Amino acid sequence: MAQGDEERIINLDHGDPTMYENYWQKKGDETTIVIPGWQFMSYFSDATNLCWFLEPEFAKQIVRLHKVVGNAVTESRYIVVGTGSTQLYQAALYALSPNTDAEPISVVSAAPFYSSYPLITDCLKSGLYKWAGDARSFSKNGPYIELVTSPNNPDGFVRHSVVNRSEGILIHDLAYYWPQYTPISYPANYDLMLFTVSKSTGHAGMRIGWALVKDKEVAKKMTKYIEINTIGVSKDSQLRAAKVLKVISDSCEISNIEQDDSFFEFSYRLMAKRWKQLRQAVHQSGLFSVPDFPPQSCKFLRRVFEPQPAFAWLKCEGEIEDCESFLRGKKILTRGGKHFGFSPKYVRISMLDRDKNYDTFVERMSRIRS
Amino acid sequence: MAQGDEERIINLDHGDPTMYENYWQKKGDETTIVIPGWQFMSYFSDATNLCWFLEPEFAKQIVRLHKVVGNAVTESRYIVVGTGSTQLYQAALYALSPNTDAEPISVVSAAPFYSSYPLITDCLKSGLYKWAGDARSFSKNGPYIELVTSPNNPDGFVRHSVVNRSEGILIHDLAYYWPQYTPISYPANYDLMLFTVSKSTGHAGMRIGWALVKDKEVAKKMTKYIEINTIGVSKDSQLRAAKVLKVISDSCEISNIEQDDSFFEFSYRLMAKRWKQLRQAVHQSGLFSVPDFPPQSCKFLRRVFEPQPAFAWLKCEGEIEDCESFLRGKKILTRGGKHFGFSPKYVRISMLDRDKNYDTFVERMSRIRS
Repeated sequence: MAQGDEERIINLDHGDPTMYENYWQKKGDETTIVIPGWQFMSYFSDATNLCWFLEPEFAKQIVRLHKVVGNAVTESRYIVVGTGSTQLYQAALYALSPNTDAEPISVVSAAPFYSSYPLITDCLKSGLYKWAGDARSFSKNGPYIELVTSPNNPDGFVRHSVVNRSEGILIHDLAYYWPQYTPISYPANYDLMLFTVSKSTGHAGMRIGWALVKDKEVAKKMTKYIEINTIGVSKDSQLRAAKVLKVISDSCEISNIEQDDSFFEFSYRLMAKRWKQLRQAVHQSGLFSVPDFPPQSCKFLRRVFEPQPAFAWLKCEGEIEDCESFLRGKKILTRGGKHFGFSPKYVRISMLDRDKNYDTFVERMSRIRS
Repeated sequence: MAQGDEERIINLDHGDPTMYENYWQKKGDETTIVIPGWQFMSYFSDATNLCWFLEPEFAKQIVRLHKVVGNAVTESRYIVVGTGSTQLYQAALYALSPNTDAEPISVVSAAPFYSSYPLITDCLKSGLYKWAGDARSFSKNGPYIELVTSPNNPDGFVRHSVVNRSEGILIHDLAYYWPQYTPISYPANYDLMLFTVSKSTGHAGMRIGWALVKDKEVAKKMTKYIEINTIGVSKDSQLRAAKVLKVISDSCEISNIEQDDSFFEFSYRLMAKRWKQLRQAVHQSGLFSVPDFPPQSCKFLRRVFEPQPAFAWLKCEGEIEDCESFLRGKKILTRGGKHFGFSPKYVRISMLDRDKNYDTFVERMSRIRS
């Protein structure tokens, strides 16, 4: 333990994926991007494409990576690029809302749900849509939008829709459906799927996400929303994302003797190591618990393993009622269960921080006694 | 006239600033940006700054450029970066709306107003704010937000607020307050000012804008909106924008023997040439008119000149009632007056397209007879 580490505040509230910096540093110049000052100045990337601000090279690398990993069907899909999947979620709400004079459509997700969903949905008090809380207790008749995050943020479990009524429209947030976090059991084949580089490659600062959309009219309306909201998406970041995705696909396809060079091997091993560390710390402390996941077969990594999510959904066992406050007292900043529509006995902890912070965190956790 | 040019569709509907490509090409590698794959991966740029996703180098270059040009006061201002000024406009609406249970606040602007303002404002049927049309006919009591675009899009005139009641809140959109378009008579000193690289440097594809905000709480709420809407702004584009702004400031500060090297000299001359061409074509045709502007003294360029706006606000004289349709018949695509809350006898025409398109456009205009 480095000197002074006991006093240091460890902030694991956000899911800032800085853990990935090491891999990209190791890859050196392969993902360096060079953009001359006179290029990519126009608003337009490809005026003939439905999503006119989507860089063709980025689209190509999205399709290739999904093919390599086998985590999503891209055939007969429109690709819509967004300023992160956050913007695409809003584009989806805009596109899927009936937009009649009727009352706003209900938006639900099974608790615990991603804490930003209610904030984003109700931010502007839209007359098109309205957050309606936990999908499990949703009983209103008529059309609704259900958000299915799988693996789920915050708890990491594989999810399916829970309301299952005829008038339901589904949005699948698959930000974490990558082999470092969960076994890839089949290529996802839903109507509207959201992905983001933040959690797949670790490049959160790019603000780049993409949607795979089956219905042409929905893809058009999503594109329209992004046109109105931000007149498209940074070309510079799309180009950089294209390069990063290409290097990942290359790293998987080349039959490396040095298997460590594969992005998903590297990040799978790091996540496995971190979950092992956390489970040991939780065991040593005796005060907490984390979920157990059934092992599953991953078609991409060709092995059976237990999910090792990007967040730990930690429960304070015993008499501690407010786990977030309790850990704040130990100078560990987390996000409390109530933000996710759940019990304050739980907190969400980012597993994606830099080694130094993560190691200090598990070390400190292991020494916590009641 | 190149062969086949008579049949070619000239699209001047959008204000795509591709005219600037030539200047940046001439500058060569000076504005080339190189980003290694492992850098700028975090969501955060500076966690200690109110706007935590603002790249410090970009902030520095914004302040420097405003000082060099003298077009805006930056002292005692918070800088909020946005995905273009379009996002910042929405952030401003979010920040300035009372957010009580009362009815949505009215948003007005004097016609002709930027065609996207009503679309953006009413896109999600927000309960916070609502488009209320032409500021000149606005008579409702109570608080309101007035948008002042100066120089104005579409017509290029210098503007001031027109409602002038005590409960008014102003947003100043100064996207075109740069010396290539209009004489810089004083440093703008308003409460909330919006700028964008699209129209100042020509880099529309970056999707980068900035707001200068006097009130700390307003800047905080704008930052919050951008956090909810897109979790910050592309780091890659901010870094590229910083470099471009730096090269512009350098080009102005160095006392060049070759004065053409100065960005604003270059673009001022090009705009002057284009406006001269257009006025000649309009005169030759006899069917149209464009506004006349009083000459003013520019403190930056140290000369007196007439505004030479980024758009021409062209009027069909005589009996043509729908100028947009009429010009479409001549294979010239423009945006009709009704989109700007004005008469269809007018159209907005981009003056910022590539030389080849612009030259074909004026040549074609000069030959139009009734």
